[in-house]
Amino acid sequence: MLIGEIFELMQFIFVVAFTTFLISCVDYDILFANKAVNHSQHPSEPIKVTLPDAFLPPNVCSARIQANSFLICILVIAGVFWIHRLVKFIYNICCYWEIHSFYINALRIPMSNLPYYTWQEVQARIVQIQKEHQICIHKKELTELDIYHRILRFKNYMVAMVNKSLLPIRFRLPLLGDTVFYTRGLKYNFELIFFWGPGSLFENEWSLKAEYKRAGNRLELAEKLSTRILWIGIANFLLCPLILIWQILYAFFSYTEILKREPGSLGARCWSLYGRCYLRHFNELDHELQSRLSKGYKPASKYMNCFISPLLTIVAKNVAFFAGSILAVLIALTIYDEDVLAVEHVLTTVTLLGVGITVCRSFIPDQHLVFCPEQLLRVILAHIHYMPDHWQGNAHRYETRDEFAQLFQYKAVFILEELLSPIITPLILIICLRPKSLDIVDFFRNFTVAVGGGGDTCSFAQMDVRQHGHPA
Amino acid sequence: MLIGEIFELMQFIFVVAFTTFLISCVDYDILFANKAVNHSQHPSEPIKVTLPDAFLPPNVCSARIQANSFLICILVIAGVFWIHRLVKFIYNICCYWEIHSFYINALRIPMSNLPYYTWQEVQARIVQIQKEHQICIHKKELTELDIYHRILRFKNYMVAMVNKSLLPIRFRLPLLGDTVFYTRGLKYNFELIFFWGPGSLFENEWSLKAEYKRAGNRLELAEKLSTRILWIGIANFLLCPLILIWQILYAFFSYTEILKREPGSLGARCWSLYGRCYLRHFNELDHELQSRLSKGYKPASKYMNCFISPLLTIVAKNVAFFAGSILAVLIALTIYDEDVLAVEHVLTTVTLLGVGITVCRSFIPDQHLVFCPEQLLRVILAHIHYMPDHWQGNAHRYETRDEFAQLFQYKAVFILEELLSPIITPLILIICLRPKSLDIVDFFRNFTVAVGGGGDTCSFAQMDVRQHGHPA
Amino acid sequence: MLIGEIFELMQFIFVVAFTTFLISCVDYDILFANKAVNHSQHPSEPIKVTLPDAFLPPNVCSARIQANSFLICILVIAGVFWIHRLVKFIYNICCYWEIHSFYINALRIPMSNLPYYTWQEVQARIVQIQKEHQICIHKKELTELDIYHRILRFKNYMVAMVNKSLLPIRFRLPLLGDTVFYTRGLKYNFELIFFWGPGSLFENEWSLKAEYKRAGNRLELAEKLSTRILWIGIANFLLCPLILIWQILYAFFSYTEILKREPGSLGARCWSLYGRCYLRHFNELDHELQSRLSKGYKPASKYMNCFISPLLTIVAKNVAFFAGSILAVLIALTIYDEDVLAVEHVLTTVTLLGVGITVCRSFIPDQHLVFCPEQLLRVILAHIHYMPDHWQGNAHRYETRDEFAQLFQYKAVFILEELLSPIITPLILIICLRPKSLDIVDFFRNFTVAVGGGGDTCSFAQMDVRQHGHPA
Repeated sequence: MLIGEIFELMQFIFVVAFTTFLISCVDYDILFANKAVNHSQHPSEPIKVTLPDAFLPPNVCSARIQANSFLICILVIAGVFWIHRLVKFIYNICCYWEIHSFYINALRIPMSNLPYYTWQEVQARIVQIQKEHQICIHKKELTELDIYHRILRFKNYMVAMVNKSLLPIRFRLPLLGDTVFYTRGLKYNFELIFFWGPGSLFENEWSLKAEYKRAGNRLELAEKLSTRILWIGIANFLLCPLILIWQILYAFFSYTEILKREPGSLGARCWSLYGRCYLRHFNELDHELQSRLSKGYKPASKYMNCFISPLLTIVAKNVAFFAGSILAVLIALTIYDEDVLAVEHVLTTVTLLGVGITVCRSFIPDQHLVFCPEQLLRVILAHIHYMPDHWQGNAHRYETRDEFAQLFQYKAVFILEELLSPIITPLILIICLRPKSLDIVDFFRNFTVAVGGGGDTCSFAQMDVRQHGHPA
Repeated sequence: MLIGEIFELMQFIFVVAFTTFLISCVDYDILFANKAVNHSQHPSEPIKVTLPDAFLPPNVCSARIQANSFLICILVIAGVFWIHRLVKFIYNICCYWEIHSFYINALRIPMSNLPYYTWQEVQARIVQIQKEHQICIHKKELTELDIYHRILRFKNYMVAMVNKSLLPIRFRLPLLGDTVFYTRGLKYNFELIFFWGPGSLFENEWSLKAEYKRAGNRLELAEKLSTRILWIGIANFLLCPLILIWQILYAFFSYTEILKREPGSLGARCWSLYGRCYLRHFNELDHELQSRLSKGYKPASKYMNCFISPLLTIVAKNVAFFAGSILAVLIALTIYDEDVLAVEHVLTTVTLLGVGITVCRSFIPDQHLVFCPEQLLRVILAHIHYMPDHWQGNAHRYETRDEFAQLFQYKAVFILEELLSPIITPLILIICLRPKSLDIVDFFRNFTVAVGGGGDTCSFAQMDVRQHGHPA
Repeated sequence: MLIGEIFELMQFIFVVAFTTFLISCVDYDILFANKAVNHSQHPSEPIKVTLPDAFLPPNVCSARIQANSFLICILVIAGVFWIHRLVKFIYNICCYWEIHSFYINALRIPMSNLPYYTWQEVQARIVQIQKEHQICIHKKELTELDIYHRILRFKNYMVAMVNKSLLPIRFRLPLLGDTVFYTRGLKYNFELIFFWGPGSLFENEWSLKAEYKRAGNRLELAEKLSTRILWIGIANFLLCPLILIWQILYAFFSYTEILKREPGSLGARCWSLYGRCYLRHFNELDHELQSRLSKGYKPASKYMNCFISPLLTIVAKNVAFFAGSILAVLIALTIYDEDVLAVEHVLTTVTLLGVGITVCRSFIPDQHLVFCPEQLLRVILAHIHYMPDHWQGNAHRYETRDEFAQLFQYKAVFILEELLSPIITPLILIICLRPKSLDIVDFFRNFTVAVGGGGDTCSFAQMDVRQHGHPA
């Protein structure tokens, strides 16, 4: 964990520094052979251009950076952000140290043995310790549910809000129809507004502010929340260009290489962030959810693959044929005499055609695919545990497929959504979330239960079948 | 479907035009850097050859085409053929339109819902409609069998003829032993002769000519059929060079790129055209057969993989070692200094060695393969439903494997057979099919049943267990 | 088999000749374009360097070889070794011929039918033949056990010695902890010392020397064995550089190409030589063991994949990110203008970064992996049949994983161990094996049983449950 955060800090510096370097310190004319390099060697010798030749000397380089005031401005902002991350990192170290001490001193689990403990064992030990030392002073005995409530307090609220369709992440768009938009940026903003930002609904990590528990001034509170959402939306809007640049740079650095090496991997699917929220049980820890979804991954992939549109397949096959023909000729010429590759843009053409063909192929279903959506959907259900009633018996329909695709999206779509997130997030916050302020205030008042020794928790997470009915 | 045909028409134009362009309009000397390009730039600048430099100007190009009378001749024939295809395409549009109208007006299935109907539902609706409106006037009620008979009339005949070994597609060749030769070209010719060509055995799409139903003049009819086969064989022979050029071009454009990218895929297997005929049930629709064979694909592949000859494996391993050694040195040199790649033919060598090694590797069985042919063959049987008796208990024998290989051939063999087809087809027609004319005439007379309202159908397809015995 | 040996002889010549050629007959300055080639063409024409230009003329080449006395020395040794191999090969041909005759004359199995016989059938026939002709004169009837004893005499001893931890192949090293070192070179030496080298414990192929069967002079015999081990160790030490060069060359030629094409394959696992010995049943033939281990391969791989260390994963992810960023920029530049590739070392960088990223990725577990070590270990047990008691219920512990990793090692580790083998083998023999001489002498005396008509066999292999207890 700690090392992961250190690496994240390093990645940030690397991305900023590398981009600055690429912008200011490289002489592209030399790289692209538009300009000859003057080595002081005698001319008869063959000229070899090396990479360092293309780099500008440090003094030229720093002069160019200083001349570019826009770049300096961004560098300063990046520096501020990085220091903020550093502070947070140091704070996290302290937290980890406390957890470390708790495990060693209270639970008496030495660090070296920790990897062998399952979560159930750790939990049992906490319950045991409470009986002996009463680490939680409000209650005599801690149950497993209490522990889960504490860890998953905010996540339970989020799950409940998604299930109640309170969060505006489903839209009916003119062309795309029923869509879901839920990115990491949006999630971060929701959490900021509800749980831990300044002026949020929660007083501290465990209790809702007193005024939100009373029914009296709900209109006034909704008004206050609405203003708050507006300000956060505006802040998002102002930071949008910076976040966008960062997202694009990061995505470029992360995915270009994969796109080159195995373009098909972007045609793979993954559980969407929305799916992860929608399919999560109350009081389900991250690793339990992950394990459940992992088990469902394979049948879900197969299920989605059953539905490749025949129209798309024909188009893909033909595009692949045309591209393949040109590539075939180029390959044949290259094998005959590889000087062909020295001709400008031939190599680029070969690379791009290759990528294009691979992308096309990912839309052509395997010839020996067996079509049995009904069975596959039943296997998926066994792992994801929840499914709308109207899917039953309609597994072969496109509506079912489209709804399932909201939970289980293309990786390419996931990346695209993350890239668009900085632009769309402020819009969603300001336009869609604000009118729902009253509903949100009501939701928190109605569905919050104060559990002795456990703080305020979402009442759905009480596992109280009498109150909320059985989910099945 | 429609779009597929449009693309086919476009592919034809593309292949012809692109080949013409490659033959007449490219200056290969420039591409292969045998001739320097004279740009009017001042000489000190590095010269960059671009692709357009290698193309001849349009007027030179068209002059070269006009000078090449052989090429023009082929282009004219291709043009005539393309127009023929275009006419057929327009006719097909009309057919599709009728089907479209039938679905909408008679079956009352709106187009937008069609993808959600299974074939069973459509069929049930036809039976229902018949009861109400009597769309077929000869009969009161249509059964599912009637519908199948109409759709699969000719396919049932073909299946019956293959099962009765009437069609000469099995040969005993001097070196290769018992072989099967059945390509798309051959199938097309068979259908032309029997079903829909001018002078075929069938009067129209649903009834056999009256004279073939009578036993009287069978010798005379056989004589007539024999002459007809001769003429079609001669026509095939005359068209052979053209078809051959087309097949070679098309295969080159289709498979070169795959050969480069994943040479192993040609070592994959597929159900042969013969296998598809041999394993087809009577009255089985295309998609039902396809689904059955797809299910059997995986165990069939595994079964065939059990039989990689140890001798071949050793040879392949050693060839791969020798090629790999040379490649290893070239790679090491390239990593040390990539100027090595600029040396003539090094890149070609690397590419060809790489392809060679991959091909070799496809003959080396996975080290962790488990050998259990008997079980695999039983799994295959569960899907393909038919198996000669002498395979039982002999799954590990090479004879069984060879016979199964006739049904489940290498993709490379499939491509090769298609390439050879234009040459071999006329030989088969003239030498092998003609002597069987009498048998064929007898077959159609003996095994044709006129079903009221369904036209003439193959009697095997009647599913009449009393007459033909149980297949099992 | 025969062909495999012919190829081995050819490989040896090839490796020696090709290396000599690379050392003496290539002008690397031309290859690396440090020196221009002087073709007698007129200068305006573009210069194309071809591969033969880089080869020195034969007379220069042979002069260089003759000048290099170290090389000549090695070539002579290699020649002697090759002739030794050739003699052995000719001897093997005679053996194969005898086996061939035995099958045809005694067992009456014609060669053409041999592939269809299972081992059980051949065995049954031998038992049958013995009853008729008494091919073994000491006994009336041969049982299957007798046949197995004869074939597997030495292997049974080795299995017993490994199971009794008599052979020093487990060490406790300062940094690495409990390690196992058992390579093909070591195995060869063990067999040399015990079974068939001059002065070994066995008189001939079937009986232990008489003095080792008597308890009397065990100290003296241990002394003698110890001296013998010393000498063999010294011989190993002297030959070490030669074997090392051979191993490195062979590994380079064999694995470079794989490393380039699919670097992930070195991250695959295989059953270690120790594992093959440890998991082998007494009286188990090679193909039976292989089949058992092959069946266990897939679950074993999955089991080991469950344990990728999270720390390693994070490091690998980040290294892949940094490498991927640089690669992304290079790819983008290349697509924009491929002249970038002409810059010195860019192509090398791209290649190496690509390999590095692939290696990193092999340490990143699949995101959708399901963690269930306990179940997997149970599946493995069903195939490998043996498992220490303390693994039961501890499948998720790292100790269990580490112990299992000794049986099921990385392929990369396997290759590394084979490379290190020439250096470590003499050390093990001299330092670790010599002190165990007495134990070894005792082992052979105590656990050898003379079976009438079967020679001396290891008593564990008698399958005598009363004497040695039940293994389960």
